[in-house]
Amino acid sequence: MTVLVINSGSSSIKYQLFKGALALAGGVVERIGEPKSRFVHRLFQNRQTIDEAVFEQPISDHGEGMSQVFTALVESGCLQHKADLLGIGHRVVHGGEAFKEPTLINDQVLAKIAEIIPLAPLHNPANLKGIQVALEIYPDVPQVAVFDTAFHQTLPPSIFHYPLPHSWYKTHHIRRYGFHGTSHHYISKQAAAYLKQPLETLNLITLHLGNGASATAIKAGKSIDTSMGMTPLEGLMMGTRCGDIDPSLPLYLTQVLGKSPEDLNSLLNRESGLKGICGANDMRQVHALAKAGDPLASLAIEMYCYRIKKYIGAYYAVLGRLDVLIFTGGIGENDAMIRNSVCAELAHLGIVIDHKKNQTASHDIFAIQGEAGAVTVLVIPTDEELEIAQQTLDLIQNQKCLGAYS
Amino acid sequence: MTVLVINSGSSSIKYQLFKGALALAGGVVERIGEPKSRFVHRLFQNRQTIDEAVFEQPISDHGEGMSQVFTALVESGCLQHKADLLGIGHRVVHGGEAFKEPTLINDQVLAKIAEIIPLAPLHNPANLKGIQVALEIYPDVPQVAVFDTAFHQTLPPSIFHYPLPHSWYKTHHIRRYGFHGTSHHYISKQAAAYLKQPLETLNLITLHLGNGASATAIKAGKSIDTSMGMTPLEGLMMGTRCGDIDPSLPLYLTQVLGKSPEDLNSLLNRESGLKGICGANDMRQVHALAKAGDPLASLAIEMYCYRIKKYIGAYYAVLGRLDVLIFTGGIGENDAMIRNSVCAELAHLGIVIDHKKNQTASHDIFAIQGEAGAVTVLVIPTDEELEIAQQTLDLIQNQKCLGAYS
Repeated sequence: MTVLVINSGSSSIKYQLFKGALALAGGVVERIGEPKSRFVHRLFQNRQTIDEAVFEQPISDHGEGMSQVFTALVESGCLQHKADLLGIGHRVVHGGEAFKEPTLINDQVLAKIAEIIPLAPLHNPANLKGIQVALEIYPDVPQVAVFDTAFHQTLPPSIFHYPLPHSWYKTHHIRRYGFHGTSHHYISKQAAAYLKQPLETLNLITLHLGNGASATAIKAGKSIDTSMGMTPLEGLMMGTRCGDIDPSLPLYLTQVLGKSPEDLNSLLNRESGLKGICGANDMRQVHALAKAGDPLASLAIEMYCYRIKKYIGAYYAVLGRLDVLIFTGGIGENDAMIRNSVCAELAHLGIVIDHKKNQTASHDIFAIQGEAGAVTVLVIPTDEELEIAQQTLDLIQNQKCLGAYS
Repeated sequence: MTVLVINSGSSSIKYQLFKGALALAGGVVERIGEPKSRFVHRLFQNRQTIDEAVFEQPISDHGEGMSQVFTALVESGCLQHKADLLGIGHRVVHGGEAFKEPTLINDQVLAKIAEIIPLAPLHNPANLKGIQVALEIYPDVPQVAVFDTAFHQTLPPSIFHYPLPHSWYKTHHIRRYGFHGTSHHYISKQAAAYLKQPLETLNLITLHLGNGASATAIKAGKSIDTSMGMTPLEGLMMGTRCGDIDPSLPLYLTQVLGKSPEDLNSLLNRESGLKGICGANDMRQVHALAKAGDPLASLAIEMYCYRIKKYIGAYYAVLGRLDVLIFTGGIGENDAMIRNSVCAELAHLGIVIDHKKNQTASHDIFAIQGEAGAVTVLVIPTDEELEIAQQTLDLIQNQKCLGAYS
């Protein structure tokens, strides 16, 4: 029942090893290909790190990095035999329209993920590299791709289409895909389990507020709208990404600033959002600046919360009925002040939070709605790795039942 | 009490002459500078055209066009003496942050409007030209600039700022300005008069749905948010403008389509929206196509209404309480089917319309909410020219009281 989850970036490999729902080990190989690579391997018990080893030595490529991961897993006793590993689950950012669910990897699937590279030129090649090196090392272990976009493939056409020339959808695949799907899906299932109600009976708004941020409208358990779009730049204000702006601005700004489209795209992704307004992209730092009297930090917080409120209102309108509002992600899970500002003056939507409950510090799910609120408001720690592990396990076990590996 | 309203475009001059709130005459000079210019002059009585004259002859520039307008007004007996004209009100699209209300034109004001040209490179130069030629012909008549952006100058900083590097606001004036302000202001005042309640006590959402389209959240009579932004491209889906899209798309599209920023901006403004999806930008034609079974026309209508619904929800959330929802503009005033789709399944926001009332055909205000609805839903014919005339008159009369012309 052991599953390894891999999130391969352009110069990093993050991993976690699960036995059922329990993380046994995890870590990260960073700065691959640089002179000073770094490999941190941790052992967990009851969600706590009980041991940590740090290796600093050059790691020339993803293959070498992945080998070291497997060696560390074996040497630390987490994996005794290759056969112990039931499957490997890979995070893949973009599944385009081809992948609506977790998918067992074969040559055809690899070719399709490669085909989608133009839609996620930074992420998909790195994800593919992680799959390829894992396949080389463990050719006999079934590997599964879990897509960040898959959960949002239920968006109806009137919502995923942009009001742009329709030929651009057909020729260039221009549409809303949405991201953070694994997280939105995971927390919605967690909420259903917590409330002891079938997910199919619930309407939810899920807010994933981390350095990236997105909101999703979930109707009867299915994603019907989400704030990120063709790329993760659209939607909420984020740490360094702008989110929604006037679509004439990117073009206007290339002209007034004398920037190339590539450079401007980088400014919108890396120098905007909280950082653009007040210079800091970590919300804890933004709070500290605001507390010290920096008016731009206060402005950044106001803008951040206002823009979330608008998404809550928009999704409230189209959902027809709202049962649950969920906060997750680094900010969503830990920042009581942001949760408070986002929910303030939304009683007419049935959203009222209890200020004392909102101050709870917990690593588990907790509810923060007040008695006057019709909407259940939950804080749920997200765990994308666990979700990938479970989806991987489910798929492989289903396949086994179907005799695919018999 | 006679006031002339002028809306000067790059190759056209539209005008209306008012006596109090009554339009006496109006028309348009089109294709100025082209070999086949066209001048249509109409006389009105009780809001009906009672006479129309069409002149087709070359009109070389705005000065010549304006002279012909004045000649026609005199010859048709609407203006007997120059002294009859109390003032001239000019529509000016962009007032930047400088103009928060109608402003009496002098050299300083002209210089300031010219300064704002980079923010509205197509509109402000044409508006300025109209002012200049009117000043040449009627140097002694007080002239007033009424700005499309002025009503939205009450937006708070957390709403007018974009999550972009703050220096771009200071250096390049990048912010939300909003447009259609004269229309949103006019219909909100009409609603207050109709309901016999002070505008300052009302919260409204105003939907201006014409070929351009925008939504405004009005709290206690003041605009606090609006869907158009730095330019009129942001916000709702329009006849040919896209409205909200992923901000990485304009840059991505310049690359995949091999277009310049200028060309792409033109595609987003002229080939997108309803036209982009189904080929037709006139909603009547879109309905006809949908009725004939064109799935893309049906998709365009669904997208159009869905995107309005989301703005209603967003503004409902931030307004705290919604008293009145207003439809105006060509589509808002005449398209019962769109009003119905927009309001469908919004009972949880207090918005319920009466299907029979919604079928009313009228040139006056009419209410369409059903008994179960807490929100008053009004259809109000907009009249930007009348609003400009009234603002012009008010300003000149105030100035006279203050002795400015005594």
